[in-house]
Amino acid sequence: MNGFVSFVSSGPGDPELLTLKALRRIEAAEVILFDDLSAGPILEFAAPSAELIGVGKRAGRASPKQDHVSRLLVDHAATGARVVRLKSGDSGIFGRLEEEILACHQADIGFEIIPGVTTASAAAAAADIPLTRRMTARRLQFVTGHDVTGALPEELNMPALADPNAVTAVYMGRRTFVKLARLLIAAGLPADTPAMMAESVSQPDQVIWRASVQDMAEHLSQDTAQGVLKPALIFYGALCSIDSAITRV
Amino acid sequence: MNGFVSFVSSGPGDPELLTLKALRRIEAAEVILFDDLSAGPILEFAAPSAELIGVGKRAGRASPKQDHVSRLLVDHAATGARVVRLKSGDSGIFGRLEEEILACHQADIGFEIIPGVTTASAAAAAADIPLTRRMTARRLQFVTGHDVTGALPEELNMPALADPNAVTAVYMGRRTFVKLARLLIAAGLPADTPAMMAESVSQPDQVIWRASVQDMAEHLSQDTAQGVLKPALIFYGALCSIDSAITRV
Repeated sequence: MNGFVSFVSSGPGDPELLTLKALRRIEAAEVILFDDLSAGPILEFAAPSAELIGVGKRAGRASPKQDHVSRLLVDHAATGARVVRLKSGDSGIFGRLEEEILACHQADIGFEIIPGVTTASAAAAAADIPLTRRMTARRLQFVTGHDVTGALPEELNMPALADPNAVTAVYMGRRTFVKLARLLIAAGLPADTPAMMAESVSQPDQVIWRASVQDMAEHLSQDTAQGVLKPALIFYGALCSIDSAITRV
Repeated sequence: MNGFVSFVSSGPGDPELLTLKALRRIEAAEVILFDDLSAGPILEFAAPSAELIGVGKRAGRASPKQDHVSRLLVDHAATGARVVRLKSGDSGIFGRLEEEILACHQADIGFEIIPGVTTASAAAAAADIPLTRRMTARRLQFVTGHDVTGALPEELNMPALADPNAVTAVYMGRRTFVKLARLLIAAGLPADTPAMMAESVSQPDQVIWRASVQDMAEHLSQDTAQGVLKPALIFYGALCSIDSAITRV
């Protein structure tokens, strides 16, 4: 009597950015495993009888608990329960989905993946701009600001990253952007390339602001010194300039 | 008495992949402008009194009508109507959003962008795989298979595109992939790099299959000769191998 796991993408945080399919899975779940980032108002859609289990990973911190999460997932599904594993943004984009899928696969537990709105899409929409541009930004790339150790990943493809004609979104980029900006500029990216930072996307405390790559690195360096460490998504490159984001000078 | 335009991302096609916010905007719209790709069952959520206007762009074909669409959008909003401009996938990703935003901006018409599920996220979910991998695919890039003329864009960043350690999604890639594959292999991408093609993502006639980059180019060349021209998204690179996609040999 195997259960079933739905990996449900919860979007950036605003419950209105859940898909209809995600909502139905949450409403029907008997067990929901959630991270810090996807918690909050979205859990109010759960049935009163559902068991809600926080697995408490945080952006920017290496998780020692990945095996534990996979274990919980498999153990709950093995009781025959309808399990929802809630993941913020789109679960397939920097959502550490593979380890948990593999655990289900190995335990012979059926699963499905419900795609969602990735945070970069929601951040651009909130700033009133598209992510791609027909003539100038025909390559859009998503990278992560840290590897499993929390540091900027080694072996970066600098010709790809230092391209001013692409739009790059750095997920979980706050803590390492100062270093990344230095590498980008050294590799030839103009220091005045437009950049945009989005914090708490789609949530009541959302902040979006713009600066050049160089100035953004300086602001972030100051913010870090002052202990500001909210998760953030940082864009740079051939960004559209018609927008509602605040310029920070 | 200016109206208001909601640019609503409708997701890849399955109405269940609409967000709650998109659904509310569609239900409340007085006028809806839609493309071929986002039409169908999603329009059934519109109010019976809503005016539905097809603007008929198709993937892979240069549109001579962009100005006409912007004109329609502005003219309808200027009557004071609540206008929804429906765009498939996430409207900010290869959705030709900028021209229409600019038209609203210039006509002093307020607008908002509702983000959605981009087709790459839905395709990966349908294949049961994540798009990024913690150790090996930490860069995900989206490119378009054609420019405004319908041809493969000039000035491709080959070190970025021929990187076997990234995952690349080529939107509207069917017609130019044979040429792109040749360029990629010439630039050093191994011919046996995994590739995956997704057609009609999330729709009843969805097909997802895998081959190597080289073999996929050969299959596509044969398909084109036989007149198969369905819109398709093509992935290649460090793709996860635990999946439910069919291998085409």
